[in-house]
Amino acid sequence: MIYIRGLIYIRGDINFKNPKMTTLKLARVPTGIEGFDDLIEGGLPEQSITLITGTPGTAKTIFGLEFIANGARKYGEKGVFITIEERPESLCRQFQRFGYDLESLVESKKIKIIYIDTDSHRGSDPYDQLTNPEFVAELKAFAPKRIVVDSISLVISLSSPPSGTRRALGDIANIFRELDATTLFMHERKTSALGELEYSLEEFLSDGIIHLQLHLRGNVLQRFLTVIKMRETKHSTGVYSFIIDTKGLKVFDLRKI
Amino acid sequence: MIYIRGLIYIRGDINFKNPKMTTLKLARVPTGIEGFDDLIEGGLPEQSITLITGTPGTAKTIFGLEFIANGARKYGEKGVFITIEERPESLCRQFQRFGYDLESLVESKKIKIIYIDTDSHRGSDPYDQLTNPEFVAELKAFAPKRIVVDSISLVISLSSPPSGTRRALGDIANIFRELDATTLFMHERKTSALGELEYSLEEFLSDGIIHLQLHLRGNVLQRFLTVIKMRETKHSTGVYSFIIDTKGLKVFDLRKI
Amino acid sequence: MIYIRGLIYIRGDINFKNPKMTTLKLARVPTGIEGFDDLIEGGLPEQSITLITGTPGTAKTIFGLEFIANGARKYGEKGVFITIEERPESLCRQFQRFGYDLESLVESKKIKIIYIDTDSHRGSDPYDQLTNPEFVAELKAFAPKRIVVDSISLVISLSSPPSGTRRALGDIANIFRELDATTLFMHERKTSALGELEYSLEEFLSDGIIHLQLHLRGNVLQRFLTVIKMRETKHSTGVYSFIIDTKGLKVFDLRKI
Amino acid sequence: MIYIRGLIYIRGDINFKNPKMTTLKLARVPTGIEGFDDLIEGGLPEQSITLITGTPGTAKTIFGLEFIANGARKYGEKGVFITIEERPESLCRQFQRFGYDLESLVESKKIKIIYIDTDSHRGSDPYDQLTNPEFVAELKAFAPKRIVVDSISLVISLSSPPSGTRRALGDIANIFRELDATTLFMHERKTSALGELEYSLEEFLSDGIIHLQLHLRGNVLQRFLTVIKMRETKHSTGVYSFIIDTKGLKVFDLRKI
Amino acid sequence: MIYIRGLIYIRGDINFKNPKMTTLKLARVPTGIEGFDDLIEGGLPEQSITLITGTPGTAKTIFGLEFIANGARKYGEKGVFITIEERPESLCRQFQRFGYDLESLVESKKIKIIYIDTDSHRGSDPYDQLTNPEFVAELKAFAPKRIVVDSISLVISLSSPPSGTRRALGDIANIFRELDATTLFMHERKTSALGELEYSLEEFLSDGIIHLQLHLRGNVLQRFLTVIKMRETKHSTGVYSFIIDTKGLKVFDLRKI
Amino acid sequence: MIYIRGLIYIRGDINFKNPKMTTLKLARVPTGIEGFDDLIEGGLPEQSITLITGTPGTAKTIFGLEFIANGARKYGEKGVFITIEERPESLCRQFQRFGYDLESLVESKKIKIIYIDTDSHRGSDPYDQLTNPEFVAELKAFAPKRIVVDSISLVISLSSPPSGTRRALGDIANIFRELDATTLFMHERKTSALGELEYSLEEFLSDGIIHLQLHLRGNVLQRFLTVIKMRETKHSTGVYSFIIDTKGLKVFDLRKI
Repeated sequence: MIYIRGLIYIRGDINFKNPKMTTLKLARVPTGIEGFDDLIEGGLPEQSITLITGTPGTAKTIFGLEFIANGARKYGEKGVFITIEERPESLCRQFQRFGYDLESLVESKKIKIIYIDTDSHRGSDPYDQLTNPEFVAELKAFAPKRIVVDSISLVISLSSPPSGTRRALGDIANIFRELDATTLFMHERKTSALGELEYSLEEFLSDGIIHLQLHLRGNVLQRFLTVIKMRETKHSTGVYSFIIDTKGLKVFDLRKI
Repeated sequence: MIYIRGLIYIRGDINFKNPKMTTLKLARVPTGIEGFDDLIEGGLPEQSITLITGTPGTAKTIFGLEFIANGARKYGEKGVFITIEERPESLCRQFQRFGYDLESLVESKKIKIIYIDTDSHRGSDPYDQLTNPEFVAELKAFAPKRIVVDSISLVISLSSPPSGTRRALGDIANIFRELDATTLFMHERKTSALGELEYSLEEFLSDGIIHLQLHLRGNVLQRFLTVIKMRETKHSTGVYSFIIDTKGLKVFDLRKI
Repeated sequence: MIYIRGLIYIRGDINFKNPKMTTLKLARVPTGIEGFDDLIEGGLPEQSITLITGTPGTAKTIFGLEFIANGARKYGEKGVFITIEERPESLCRQFQRFGYDLESLVESKKIKIIYIDTDSHRGSDPYDQLTNPEFVAELKAFAPKRIVVDSISLVISLSSPPSGTRRALGDIANIFRELDATTLFMHERKTSALGELEYSLEEFLSDGIIHLQLHLRGNVLQRFLTVIKMRETKHSTGVYSFIIDTKGLKVFDLRKI
Repeated sequence: MIYIRGLIYIRGDINFKNPKMTTLKLARVPTGIEGFDDLIEGGLPEQSITLITGTPGTAKTIFGLEFIANGARKYGEKGVFITIEERPESLCRQFQRFGYDLESLVESKKIKIIYIDTDSHRGSDPYDQLTNPEFVAELKAFAPKRIVVDSISLVISLSSPPSGTRRALGDIANIFRELDATTLFMHERKTSALGELEYSLEEFLSDGIIHLQLHLRGNVLQRFLTVIKMRETKHSTGVYSFIIDTKGLKVFDLRKI
Repeated sequence: MIYIRGLIYIRGDINFKNPKMTTLKLARVPTGIEGFDDLIEGGLPEQSITLITGTPGTAKTIFGLEFIANGARKYGEKGVFITIEERPESLCRQFQRFGYDLESLVESKKIKIIYIDTDSHRGSDPYDQLTNPEFVAELKAFAPKRIVVDSISLVISLSSPPSGTRRALGDIANIFRELDATTLFMHERKTSALGELEYSLEEFLSDGIIHLQLHLRGNVLQRFLTVIKMRETKHSTGVYSFIIDTKGLKVFDLRKI
Repeated sequence: MIYIRGLIYIRGDINFKNPKMTTLKLARVPTGIEGFDDLIEGGLPEQSITLITGTPGTAKTIFGLEFIANGARKYGEKGVFITIEERPESLCRQFQRFGYDLESLVESKKIKIIYIDTDSHRGSDPYDQLTNPEFVAELKAFAPKRIVVDSISLVISLSSPPSGTRRALGDIANIFRELDATTLFMHERKTSALGELEYSLEEFLSDGIIHLQLHLRGNVLQRFLTVIKMRETKHSTGVYSFIIDTKGLKVFDLRKI
């Protein structure tokens, strides 16, 4: 492999000796969300970065918490939930409603909840924090299989990275890719209607996009989910209805009803 | 708990000793607005920040005043109404119309009305004022259970915080969260149609969003209310009609009529 | 009352001794425009600031002139019409068409017409002029009950106030509020369709908004009026048709026809 | 009359001695365009400034040339056509098509055609030129009753007035108002659909707006004209069809056909 | 003729002695495109500048090449095709498809193809090049009757003229007007739907606008052509279908089919 | 041939001696994508640059990989895939799903996969890299017939070329044109609806545009493909349905079903 000022030139006789390249079988990481994993061949591609995108109130945080909690409870995988918007207490109370005891998962060291304080007096730049080598080392030591960042939009809007937003996003993505975890980035969308979406930088960069939507039908805002993009996956592109019931999210196939 | 330059790293063996974390039962704070509390499990989540958003003329101020006045009269909870847009005299007269005597509530120390003067000769930066430690101390001493800021949009547009708008909003939110009160932020929306909403920073930051709307039906602008988001709450996402009658706001379930 | 750097902290035992606070009965100021006052409980709230908003050609100036002229002729109230856009001669001729003799009202000292010259050679900054203490003193000495500024949009677009547009608007509003007059600010709107309105700063700041509209029906632009907002008033939110006839504006209730 | 730093304070006992104020009878200036003058009480208000607005190809220039040529031929009024966009030769040829001989009108000193060269090597700032005292003096000496500026949009876009665009527009308008002529400003509109119009500064400043439109009906762009605004005039607000025939513009009343 | 700082003041007794002014008969320049010249009185006005505008893929280049090649082959007029976007080889191959041999036309000195290289290493500012006196002199020496610039949009976007874009456009137009040729400027449009067009500076400046469109009908993007503006021409404003067949463009009258 | 400061002035007696000019027969380069080549006369024009444009999730990368892999396997042509967005491992796994073994193609030196690392610590400006003479020389030495850049949008958004974006795009295009390869530039589109497309600089510069679309029909986002532009090609402008099946992309003619 030859580097020309940062360019990796892959020659045939080098790269594919690389053990990573030969492990071509891709594992799937199930979310455990009822009715969802069937839409994406059983789960997210291992080590991928998927954007959960939606306007306020579309249940992005619940999606992320279920991903982490189900990982720990159903699949025995460690997880880390990085929250900027919402305090850990609120997350725990919110999940108790669905019958999950986040507190005991934290105590049994199955999950970690990390709260980044962005108060301008106490806190500092979230880009600096997420890319801090000490922090990355601690994350690596915990070795989570699942990570959620809630939200990547807040990380970006509160950071002033020296190399610009576009590169900062790439840098953060690189850190998570190298952790060998499967990652969800929560993404705040300003407008919602499918088919008139305006895509943002984050979406071109991610391996997958799951779009959550509150859409006015009659006199009610109803909830819908669409998988817009998922690399290495034969995914449905249907618009699925979902609800929040007493156990968490539940996705329905509209065509079956 | 370990702080890495402002990052709060929560370990399983530390945080959940924290008494706050173990009080997982969430109390509800009823608004007392007729027909509304049933839509949100009986009331707003205690200590949450909810945005009341709408274009001019959508009755945001009346919503806020009812929240404070009902708190004092029906639920015995002290309240503070922080007004920037409208003078206290006008607020009092407006409420007398609905049979509320704000003056006597003020005199009996059940509520406070705080007017922030933004005249460029007499007044100063509202961000500075709301985050002024002396002011915060006085608020804390009064120990209100309910607070209204009318409007957060004016606070932001009239302030020039050194750390930028995004962080200033976070700082103000932090101050109110730490007061242990339940807070309403009135929010000025520039356009109105549900389903084409463009969300703003304030909305991603808040725990709840209640959207008030004047919508043209036939030859009349009618009033509608929708709960777009409310954390820790199984809320309706229906579009409800409401009117302003002789006693204040009255919300109707369109599906029942 | 305690001032914390410009913040007025109202305590229960102080403010309501203030005689202004106890005069809770609000007087109404009729416009005298045919068919209109019934929509707003008989008139504008005394001492309020109402925006008359519309695109070019929607009869804003005629609305304002009727308000002033009717005040003087029908209700015995002195009025001041501050014009920037249109010269006094043109205003007088325009009103002669409707049978009003502005000239004799001026001569009998019932009204004043003030023309602010914005020529860049002769004139100066309208914000400076309106907030000039000498000018304010003269206004106060005349003691008008009704004031029209035609238009506030021109005042803003031609001024470069040191404290920024947002505060300048507040300062001007404060001056008119303290004159104890009822004020109309004419407001230039760039687009017109109700329901797709984009609201501006001026609209969040005012006590009332009356929207005048030219709307294409069939092959004719027809005139419509809507009261979008009016504090302390149970106002209609209907869309009313109006015409300009030989006596001035005439508002119709579409639902009665 | 008292001037406070550029503000003209009109007292009742002063202004109306002014002879201009007492000439309250307004004369009308017919355009001579077939089918048009009936829509505006027989003609434009004398000494007014009217915007002829439209996207490219809507026949603005032909409207202006007819106004000048008809003035000279039918009403014996001298006129000046100030052209920036199009060269005099082209104007003359274009009018020969409609049976007008501009050349002989120029030779008999009934009209003047003034071409402002905006070539960056030869020409200079059109704002400087139009407000040049020498130029204004020459205009005044010719004493035209009708003036056309084709187009005011080009004047503005090619000028860099020290006092800013908004004031420059006012200054130019003032010069033409003081010439005692009736003026048409041709105005370039970027988009066209009536009812979705976005109005510009020029439109709030003018006394009248005539909107010319190419509108797609079936597979043809058809021509329409609407009088959106005209001070001191009871004008139609209908949408009228017009064509360009062998004699010039011809306006039809759609409701009569 | 008197120049006041760049203003050409045309007096009746001077200008019309100018021989150009007396040649009022306008010649037409046929494009030779099948079905098109009938829409514009037989051809483009001699010495005019016409914009051929459209989004990518609307056949602008083919229109321009036909104009030049037909000039040389059918009407014996010399032509110059100035290309920035596309290399001469590609132009030649493209035309060979339609049975034109551009190469032999070039060799017989009937046409010239000029390629402006905008490579940032080899090339330079196209505005500088087109206004270069040496280049203009060479063009004049060749004495073309027809010129195409493909595209004026690229010229503008790649130039940094000291006097600003607006003036640069005027300067380039002036150079071509003074060459006594009839000119087509190819113009890149970003959006396409007729009736929602947003016009640009180039369009107000040109003598004519021909709009080429790809419009979705059913499941096919079909080609349409409309003459939006053409000075000194009674042109159709219909929307005409056109195709690209084996001989070049072919315009159909939709109303005849 | 005469160069005037970067302008190539082509005289009839020079250029067409140039051997390139006389090779007027254009070869086609088939993509090998099922159902697609028939829409474009059997393949892309040799040595052209075609934009594959679409929002996230529209299968742009799969289109590009098939173009390279089919070239090597079906047509014996060497290819280079330059990836910025996605890592080579992921590309290989993704293609294994469709039965392609990229690894063995790389090992047999039929294709190269080049990954440009844009990490702000390790990587550098992609414009610098792609235009690096050493890199260009290596590319030339490999002599690929097919090149894909995935994506040109990332190249542009991550580069800060000294001569500006517009020229940088031209420079990159020039490098690829001079390699005698047929090139695909993947292009990230922010919005998607055909007929409301807003075109970008890249699209005016390319020889062809293929538009991939996810369009909501019923409750499913379906995939469509349209050839918007292709120079030297009589291409369909229909909207074709396509799917991703077990062997790769498959294009259907909607009119045949």
